[in-house]
Amino acid sequence: MNNDRLLKDIEFIVELDKMKTILRQTTLIDKSKRENDAEHSWHISVMAMILSEYANEEIDVCKVIKMLLIHDLVEIYAGDTFCYDVEGNKDKKERETKAAYKIFGMLDEDKGRELRKLWEEFEEMKTNEALFAASMDRLQPFLNNYFSDGGTWKKFNVSKKDIYKRIAPLKESSNILWNFTKNMIEDAYDRGYILRE
Amino acid sequence: MNNDRLLKDIEFIVELDKMKTILRQTTLIDKSKRENDAEHSWHISVMAMILSEYANEEIDVCKVIKMLLIHDLVEIYAGDTFCYDVEGNKDKKERETKAAYKIFGMLDEDKGRELRKLWEEFEEMKTNEALFAASMDRLQPFLNNYFSDGGTWKKFNVSKKDIYKRIAPLKESSNILWNFTKNMIEDAYDRGYILRE
Ligand SMILES: [Ca+2]
Repeated sequence: MNNDRLLKDIEFIVELDKMKTILRQTTLIDKSKRENDAEHSWHISVMAMILSEYANEEIDVCKVIKMLLIHDLVEIYAGDTFCYDVEGNKDKKERETKAAYKIFGMLDEDKGRELRKLWEEFEEMKTNEALFAASMDRLQPFLNNYFSDGGTWKKFNVSKKDIYKRIAPLKESSNILWNFTKNMIEDAYDRGYILRE
Repeated sequence: MNNDRLLKDIEFIVELDKMKTILRQTTLIDKSKRENDAEHSWHISVMAMILSEYANEEIDVCKVIKMLLIHDLVEIYAGDTFCYDVEGNKDKKERETKAAYKIFGMLDEDKGRELRKLWEEFEEMKTNEALFAASMDRLQPFLNNYFSDGGTWKKFNVSKKDIYKRIAPLKESSNILWNFTKNMIEDAYDRGYILRE
């Protein structure tokens, strides 16, 4: 046993603890606080277990879950970029690619490479697994906004058009979830949770 | 498509949000706050991905991760019982079994049953997957205590003997992790993070 390999794993695991302090804009449904990256990553991973039966295509749920568990690790160094923040999203890719080399580079090469590949697949959003994972990543804050009377939609005056654009991966990954979500968007607009067309 | 089934899923997913408010005794490594069940469940799920190569037996990592993602859902109704709380642990099993019927009962029968079975397997701690999952569940607060100069060990004056007992599943699931952890316990004692034999 190469003890050095395990020591790297432990250092990586210790570093992960920081995910619990990276705040997202989305709040909990009870509005008591903003959620953090660790909480968000957990929530969407369980959602993948629960909702995978609605995927249009046969998917490897295990891969989806692994992607979701690690998809936000880059934010330990790159921070969370709010999805509707135009400025912040300009250099997001560059910041996150650097961060990916740093965080996955903490592990032994073979192990780090495997995780980085998983993260890259998620980011490219081309495979069925990546599309379904992206759908979970977008549906969760969507639900939290809906069930907290508008949440960040209202707070940042996000338009219905922008929400449709954000939620687009659902269209490709699941007809059932897409139809359900579309109805919720229209309902949210009628209820005044979304303020602009 | 039976829309009722999806509505139940959505209600379940909304209920999961409460996991982000259930505080555990363990703090973050930076000591800034106590961690909650959602954060803890995420952390141990990633740990399973990283550390599964050290398992003594061939294990289905995917099953381990699924177990870990849902193992604490019962605490939405039963609350978190501190592992070194003798009184609270007396009726823990009864409270959690009731809670399991309630939370998994929110889903359609087949779906709820599958999750309840996974939770029961975890609780019984007999299969290789359940033993490895329990090891992750115990190793994470162990690491957080160690790297925050004693954490709850010091705060609640937990003895070395009790820590060895708590960490026992590691002995059966991974020789490598067990040896590593044993050394850490002795080191923690020498450093004064653990105050009693
Ligand atoms: Ca993100």
